[in-house]
Amino acid sequence: MTEVRVRTRDGEYPVVVGGDALAELARMLAEHAPAQRFAVISDDRVAALHGHPLMEAIRGAGLDASLYTFPAGEASKTRKSWSILTDEMLEAGFGRDSCVVAVGGGVTTDLAGFVAATFLRGVPLVQVPTSYLAMIDASVGGKTGVDVSMGKNLVGAFHPPRLVVADPAVLRTLPRDERAQGLVEAFKHGAILDREYFERLESDVAALLDAEPRAAEAAVLRSVQLKAEVVSDDEREGGYRQILNFGHTLGHALEAASHYALGHGSAVAVGMVLEAEVGERMGVTAPGTRQRLTDALERAVAVSAGSVDADEAMRYLRTDKKVRAGRSRVVLLRGIGEVDPGHGWTHEVAEELLAEVLAQGVAIG
Amino acid sequence: MTEVRVRTRDGEYPVVVGGDALAELARMLAEHAPAQRFAVISDDRVAALHGHPLMEAIRGAGLDASLYTFPAGEASKTRKSWSILTDEMLEAGFGRDSCVVAVGGGVTTDLAGFVAATFLRGVPLVQVPTSYLAMIDASVGGKTGVDVSMGKNLVGAFHPPRLVVADPAVLRTLPRDERAQGLVEAFKHGAILDREYFERLESDVAALLDAEPRAAEAAVLRSVQLKAEVVSDDEREGGYRQILNFGHTLGHALEAASHYALGHGSAVAVGMVLEAEVGERMGVTAPGTRQRLTDALERAVAVSAGSVDADEAMRYLRTDKKVRAGRSRVVLLRGIGEVDPGHGWTHEVAEELLAEVLAQGVAIG
Repeated sequence: MTEVRVRTRDGEYPVVVGGDALAELARMLAEHAPAQRFAVISDDRVAALHGHPLMEAIRGAGLDASLYTFPAGEASKTRKSWSILTDEMLEAGFGRDSCVVAVGGGVTTDLAGFVAATFLRGVPLVQVPTSYLAMIDASVGGKTGVDVSMGKNLVGAFHPPRLVVADPAVLRTLPRDERAQGLVEAFKHGAILDREYFERLESDVAALLDAEPRAAEAAVLRSVQLKAEVVSDDEREGGYRQILNFGHTLGHALEAASHYALGHGSAVAVGMVLEAEVGERMGVTAPGTRQRLTDALERAVAVSAGSVDADEAMRYLRTDKKVRAGRSRVVLLRGIGEVDPGHGWTHEVAEELLAEVLAQGVAIG
Repeated sequence: MTEVRVRTRDGEYPVVVGGDALAELARMLAEHAPAQRFAVISDDRVAALHGHPLMEAIRGAGLDASLYTFPAGEASKTRKSWSILTDEMLEAGFGRDSCVVAVGGGVTTDLAGFVAATFLRGVPLVQVPTSYLAMIDASVGGKTGVDVSMGKNLVGAFHPPRLVVADPAVLRTLPRDERAQGLVEAFKHGAILDREYFERLESDVAALLDAEPRAAEAAVLRSVQLKAEVVSDDEREGGYRQILNFGHTLGHALEAASHYALGHGSAVAVGMVLEAEVGERMGVTAPGTRQRLTDALERAVAVSAGSVDADEAMRYLRTDKKVRAGRSRVVLLRGIGEVDPGHGWTHEVAEELLAEVLAQGVAIG
């Protein structure tokens, strides 16, 4: 097990990564988030896979813990699920001396995180991510929230966890496509911060898709280290943290334009490729970067041309206010492993250029 | 105008108190909470009284502001109202560069505060309290939240404002009984921290109930100063801030047991009197303190005997987990103007003693 520490404005918290980490969960809860009672929150799919042994282990250590579940899927990441989970905890008499333990993918870490952020004005939170995406992205950094009809993650709070426990052994139970979707964010970490890591991901991609233990643990650890460095420097996304948005300006637009038929990872993969094209055309990104990204990412995910309407994506960018006065702010690479500092880590890009690049089509793989 | 500064873990914010403060609101918004757009949130009663001139003044200063209202009353302090207000702001295209301005009583400052705390994971908040209660209590300290069926304020967040503007001139538009309810919290500030202030409130009570400008401004200012000192030292209620709960352990139980027929101020008034009795019986509170509190408080509010069932209040205390293992933690006075430090500012009180004191009946006035 390896521990990475994330600084927050109130202190810091450990992210523990290791193929045997889950076996130590009860001990770590008692150490880092001592509480009278623990509310373990999971979706029904993760609960069926891991709920019983996990609850046995926690209770076996003498802790008072109850399991609360909700239906698996992004459709559950709503204010309604948040209300139901909160009310269940209130009815069961949970007080301020409670702790919420989120066990699951990004939907669970965001949703249960928002429950913890707002329960009696905030109780401690422990994140136990079970997907690549949640391990390397969602559970580190303190963002919590739910989706509303106007868009994803529009309601939420910053609520840093007390502890994150990422055990790559559980990735074996994850559907292969979800592993692929999550790995895209790992490639993003390499693309913006660490060329060597990017290259290792490229060569290990088959093993990572298989959740082969050594490769998975190494990737989760490196991504957590990179993300921890970024969010420790800029918890609230004022400046440097924006580099994590590489691929996400166009990626979110494509995801929304597909009405979420396109997975988040696939959308971000295409977003990174197209934002590299934007950067190359502007003379900011080294020529060949787009091709390099395409070659690497298509080993993990495939997106067929025509799966998204570029005009619709452009309309989304405009209504989302990401385009202001005909220009948008986009994170651009210098090359693989390095972001161009631009002005406050972004560049102004003309709407016409974004539209032109989007219109090229979005196929990879 | 007088400015009181409240420290938070992130910095500090000013509370501006003065009979001419509202006229300066637009200038102060631009200075302390500069934003692209302002969402002014009010209940329909306050909006009818103050909305038009206020919006004219804000817009007249060149700021982009929109008014959002909800039906007046505690029944609106719900997750549903919070969802509606949030969605209205999202549909109108408010982004992260927005600011929420809450104009109203405690329901509005809590509800609009929770909107600000969770809108796109948090946007700046300005509190413009229009009742005694909101000026001296709700708008200072960063607590926001809503009621749920299990109880009041059980869902929320700490979200300190950027600025609080308290203009006692608007108190003239407040129903007299609401003024009385709010003044009880002023008496509480005197009772726990400042004997001289307590005595001034006692002699000024008629003028305060009439919202006479000089008396009202002096009381709001002194209460804000006292509360600011307490919450600056202990933002999250770990220790010293608990002294603000004087009168509230029994007060909340009485309020809930009356099914909220008893006003918050009336309930807290009785709670203070009965907690003084508890303290006297335990030898912690100086003899005669209960009588002194009764004499003062009955000038502001009246509570008739039999308006609350003591057994029901006791049941509430038990189910609310305020009684643990047969004992409850209560803030006790040494005398008027001073809290006994006890252990961490509270004393353990046996359930039997609380039940006995509650059974005495709850009439004052």
